[in-house]
Amino acid sequence: MKTKAMQALSEIRENLERGIIPFWTERGVDREFGGYLTCFDEAGNPTGDTDKYIVTQTRMIWGLAAMYEEYHDERLREAARQGWEFFRDKFWDKTYGGWYWKVARDGTMLDDGKVVYGEGFAIYALAKYAQVFGDAQALDYAERTFDLLQIYCADTLRGGYYENLEPDWTISAPGFAAGDRKSLDIHMHLMEAFTALSEATGKEIHRRKLAEVIDIILTHMVNHEHGCALNQFDVNFNPIPAINIRRTWNAERATGEVIETPTDTTSYGHNVELGWLLNRATDVLGRDFHANDEIVKKFCDHSLKFGFDHELGGVYRDGVHNGPALVYDKEWWQNCEVLVGYLDAWERLGDDKYFDAFYKTWQFDRAHFISPLTHEWRQLLRRDGTPLVTDIGNPWKAIYHTGRAMLECKRRLERMV
Amino acid sequence: MKTKAMQALSEIRENLERGIIPFWTERGVDREFGGYLTCFDEAGNPTGDTDKYIVTQTRMIWGLAAMYEEYHDERLREAARQGWEFFRDKFWDKTYGGWYWKVARDGTMLDDGKVVYGEGFAIYALAKYAQVFGDAQALDYAERTFDLLQIYCADTLRGGYYENLEPDWTISAPGFAAGDRKSLDIHMHLMEAFTALSEATGKEIHRRKLAEVIDIILTHMVNHEHGCALNQFDVNFNPIPAINIRRTWNAERATGEVIETPTDTTSYGHNVELGWLLNRATDVLGRDFHANDEIVKKFCDHSLKFGFDHELGGVYRDGVHNGPALVYDKEWWQNCEVLVGYLDAWERLGDDKYFDAFYKTWQFDRAHFISPLTHEWRQLLRRDGTPLVTDIGNPWKAIYHTGRAMLECKRRLERMV
Repeated sequence: MKTKAMQALSEIRENLERGIIPFWTERGVDREFGGYLTCFDEAGNPTGDTDKYIVTQTRMIWGLAAMYEEYHDERLREAARQGWEFFRDKFWDKTYGGWYWKVARDGTMLDDGKVVYGEGFAIYALAKYAQVFGDAQALDYAERTFDLLQIYCADTLRGGYYENLEPDWTISAPGFAAGDRKSLDIHMHLMEAFTALSEATGKEIHRRKLAEVIDIILTHMVNHEHGCALNQFDVNFNPIPAINIRRTWNAERATGEVIETPTDTTSYGHNVELGWLLNRATDVLGRDFHANDEIVKKFCDHSLKFGFDHELGGVYRDGVHNGPALVYDKEWWQNCEVLVGYLDAWERLGDDKYFDAFYKTWQFDRAHFISPLTHEWRQLLRRDGTPLVTDIGNPWKAIYHTGRAMLECKRRLERMV
Repeated sequence: MKTKAMQALSEIRENLERGIIPFWTERGVDREFGGYLTCFDEAGNPTGDTDKYIVTQTRMIWGLAAMYEEYHDERLREAARQGWEFFRDKFWDKTYGGWYWKVARDGTMLDDGKVVYGEGFAIYALAKYAQVFGDAQALDYAERTFDLLQIYCADTLRGGYYENLEPDWTISAPGFAAGDRKSLDIHMHLMEAFTALSEATGKEIHRRKLAEVIDIILTHMVNHEHGCALNQFDVNFNPIPAINIRRTWNAERATGEVIETPTDTTSYGHNVELGWLLNRATDVLGRDFHANDEIVKKFCDHSLKFGFDHELGGVYRDGVHNGPALVYDKEWWQNCEVLVGYLDAWERLGDDKYFDAFYKTWQFDRAHFISPLTHEWRQLLRRDGTPLVTDIGNPWKAIYHTGRAMLECKRRLERMV
């Protein structure tokens, strides 16, 4: 096992240092207007889509700051700095507060909707940026964003957060605009954001809201019997059939298998990601290292039972709660997140099957996701590794899942060997 | 009935114009330090207690602004203005934001605890002051206070608000400090505050939180079967035996009957007050005039069945949910609030028994509460009207219940005759 760990560590370092970091610092920075360009084909050529989305802009800021923290390369600092300044100057809504959803390449506002998913990533990125570079202004914006979420998005009747809001922070309409829905995805990414903010400020209010969102998730959004998470809920947290929602990856994606009525599915990669993000959150709160062992074991074991390709490695996309997978495509982000989640479970639970799952997934990822042209990751494959979408970047894909997974695995493997 | 209404209207005008308004404008203003003095014996002599509490300072601001709105007397404006400026300069916590609980006569801070009951009254007072006098700064402070409550007091896990917080907005300890309790009283006064703020700003977020707190009360805090409200709850809104709580009127009062274990009581006057405040709230939200008829009828009928003195008029203090009263003392504030509540119910429900209850209470109040020495109201009487506490003002009693009740009754009676 130690040999495998050393080998994987070496490959992961290479993926970071020859692939991910140079790809995004060299091609990701928009040297004309500032901020980031994130849409590239497999060869690293721009696809022509230059709109700038809050999600990928902030993920780039987060990723570059996180890489700087590890590598202390001034090019990373500079790439992060200019991206933060573009974001601050072009995305902040000076009328209503909070961040736009989308701007044009030059910074012209295209969509000023207030989406909690995006606002959460702004907190995540600015808290990290502030922590790594000691930037008080970035931290101030992160805290102001947190405050706006508490004022405008918290549901003081039922708990949890409204997720989709109009530019002026009024709640969006029901249905496709999803003003009447709550979801695991947004609440999980708020947990991730509040974790970063708590780490950056140490403030009681940030820690308190982190603890609350953890409990919202564990109380309302997890099927503890089957060991998987649920997707969408009405405002009272009753699980309801998932629908496509405006301004989401699932609504905007165009390729790959589609389930006609995805009413009752769970995402293996998302569940295992939830597990390790939960551990990170409780670590920051100072709770016991084993605080989440029971639920993390359930998530991992559920994925290994129903969602794992025991032949080739890697996880499928979606399946039912207590039964086989429905969508066997393999997507980059799930197959990034499970690497971290399985290693994290191995560290805490001590069961080697989680290391094996990590290692087998890494073999598959390395062989099929990582493009030999750029050493960054393709987007979507068939079960057997046949590429379906080879783009390295799109409006939803940049440095976050790949860079973070490699960084998190690197640190865990270094502790191991 | 019209004759009775005209007679009551005349007496109520007299109580305002000869009693309440001159009493508080002449004696309530602290001409040495600013702000208000509120502790007076029956003859209107200062009792020597000059500490200034957020609750009575804000209630004075509210009351004087409300009186100005009705009477346009410049002395009222001036008395309100100086109180607002003292409050702004001496109560605002420049470190943590929000308002102190208590200062000395000269403004020296004595207790910087953050109590939602008090913060809510600050919103109520400053919103009214801003609306009546067009003061943008007061409105800004009201809105900032509202924002602080959303950030620091909302319970995003279970809904509702934490009510008792430390100076730095961390949640207080369980037990007497009551960090682990929710209550009808505080949520009702938040409803009242958000009503005033919604009226002053018209903003969606203030209207939204008003609608949410209405639903918190009606969902969790009312016994719809028996037609009465409950008192105290754990953080999950499970009703629990009431205890004395730090910084409350009940914990600080020293005179009158005491129930050893007041586990399951309801306050008739509070219930009827809740009814008319609910109607005011939904009026501001633009809902149907009859939106709350069912629950308002229940509250009023419950009070008339169990808590009303059909012989002498007026309501007793407390009783069980579905049975006779336990505490037969008559207190000023309950016997102010039911005047408004019964008239309000009469206007909406059209049943003359509510007018009769108003009239009978007013006969009792006029004969026994209103002191012939000052024409303001005594504090506490026995069932038969024998005075128990004759003070006109104390740290919890000033212009709010008496002045507001007289003003609200005046307007309703003027519509009637």
